Amino acid sequence: MSSFYVHVSYDSRFRSTGDDDVVIKILYCGICHSDLHSIKNEWKNARYPMIPGHEIAGEVTEVGKNVTKFEAGDRVGVGVMVNSCQSCESCNEGFENHCPGIIPTYNTVDLDGTITYGGYSGMVVVHERFVVRFPDTIPLDKGAPLLCAGITVYSPMKYHGLNVPGMHLGVLGLGGLGHVAVKFGKAFGMKVTVISSSPGKKQEALERLGADAFVISKDADEMKAAMSTMDGIINTVSANIPMAPLLGLLKPNGKMIMVGLPEKSMEIPPFALVASI
Amino acid sequence: MSSFYVHVSYDSRFRSTGDDDVVIKILYCGICHSDLHSIKNEWKNARYPMIPGHEIAGEVTEVGKNVTKFEAGDRVGVGVMVNSCQSCESCNEGFENHCPGIIPTYNTVDLDGTITYGGYSGMVVVHERFVVRFPDTIPLDKGAPLLCAGITVYSPMKYHGLNVPGMHLGVLGLGGLGHVAVKFGKAFGMKVTVISSSPGKKQEALERLGADAFVISKDADEMKAAMSTMDGIINTVSANIPMAPLLGLLKPNGKMIMVGLPEKSMEIPPFALVASI
Repeated sequence: MSSFYVHVSYDSRFRSTGDDDVVIKILYCGICHSDLHSIKNEWKNARYPMIPGHEIAGEVTEVGKNVTKFEAGDRVGVGVMVNSCQSCESCNEGFENHCPGIIPTYNTVDLDGTITYGGYSGMVVVHERFVVRFPDTIPLDKGAPLLCAGITVYSPMKYHGLNVPGMHLGVLGLGGLGHVAVKFGKAFGMKVTVISSSPGKKQEALERLGADAFVISKDADEMKAAMSTMDGIINTVSANIPMAPLLGLLKPNGKMIMVGLPEKSMEIPPFALVASI
Repeated sequence: MSSFYVHVSYDSRFRSTGDDDVVIKILYCGICHSDLHSIKNEWKNARYPMIPGHEIAGEVTEVGKNVTKFEAGDRVGVGVMVNSCQSCESCNEGFENHCPGIIPTYNTVDLDGTITYGGYSGMVVVHERFVVRFPDTIPLDKGAPLLCAGITVYSPMKYHGLNVPGMHLGVLGLGGLGHVAVKFGKAFGMKVTVISSSPGKKQEALERLGADAFVISKDADEMKAAMSTMDGIINTVSANIPMAPLLGLLKPNGKMIMVGLPEKSMEIPPFALVASI
């Protein structure tokens, strides 16, 4: 599995509870690879001391006087952002993640001048707009990774219409993002094929996660047999891999969704962009 | 202008008229850059003797006994394809251009074993499925380039919803494809901005073609001012140009449509793929 959980009990200093704020006692927090990038300052923007963590699950302990969506005792979560300008076109359309003034959950100066600290802490204070409710059916520990890994694959699948029963979804890479994409694909009623360079992941894909098929990307025969069969592919691989064979797996008008973040530029061969002459 | 026309009067040998065939007296034919690639064998698939030309406009002289859509005297056109398997999923959905058995207009062995010859000829014999009617309002000479350059930009604009009045369309490159894209954009009621590295094309873009604005892609200030303003860009440039600044012109969820065919692989920088962290 790609994510695991920490249960911490110490407190840190956070801002006092604003009128629109929700105070959350953190019970679980997923670990995302971007947390590791951040604490090692691999993105050259670290602001120490840093408290990482952006797959936060916990319980409401207090709410500001304007808060209407939550009350003490609610089971809630917080993802990668804790604030935005709340007035631009993106914010008004519910795409706060595209707001130029987005405030990530940690390592950032919030609108009020305070530094944001993440989920490897005992508590967090967040504007209610950026708090989500956990349904009773989802355990806090198992659900925490949905706040980042989950939404990262769910959102583009839904936006691009890759959530239709009977469609054939390819999931490239079976790490933190890929395994959640498989689960969503099956929940949507799709046929799901995992594409991986690691034969050792076949059993996990088919037996543990319920994928329908497994294609080894380095096996030319398996790749050839899968050509032009997929309505869409979620590419979760953070490496520069040859794109032409992967694009060949798509049906006409199929969709390749990139959610991995390679270190260097991607190379897309020219004829891979052309469906036909 | 990017296209010009030839008026030829010699005949070549074509197959006899089949039951589903339309015989066309060719009056005009556009010249596309791919014709030049083909006759010079730059794609390493030339089959000589070759008659290029795939923006064909003319008049029906004869039809086969099963033909119902056309009769002698009709003003018609033929584009880049003259046959397909006519039975696969793509063909059944009207996307014959995606058929694995597509038969291009020239330089190919047709289903009946004959070689296809293109529009720089006096006549052509084509299955009625691949003949289109010219409306009375469109002159044959001016309309010929719609059969390749026109459909190449019209089709993705329509498919991807870049045909909505009030939307902002960027047209990158003002050659054979770009100038038609500007005309379609304005006909759809869109705001159209031409993006070009050639300041000399400004007057043509604004005054002759009716574009609303012109951005010089090498001018950092002009590019910065246009950032995050476009709903979509038609990229008609057949060269490897830096993609990150161009992607920056798009609004969130904007669409970059690639119709140019660079010689080498395209490089897309990783962070250009990410809307936000």
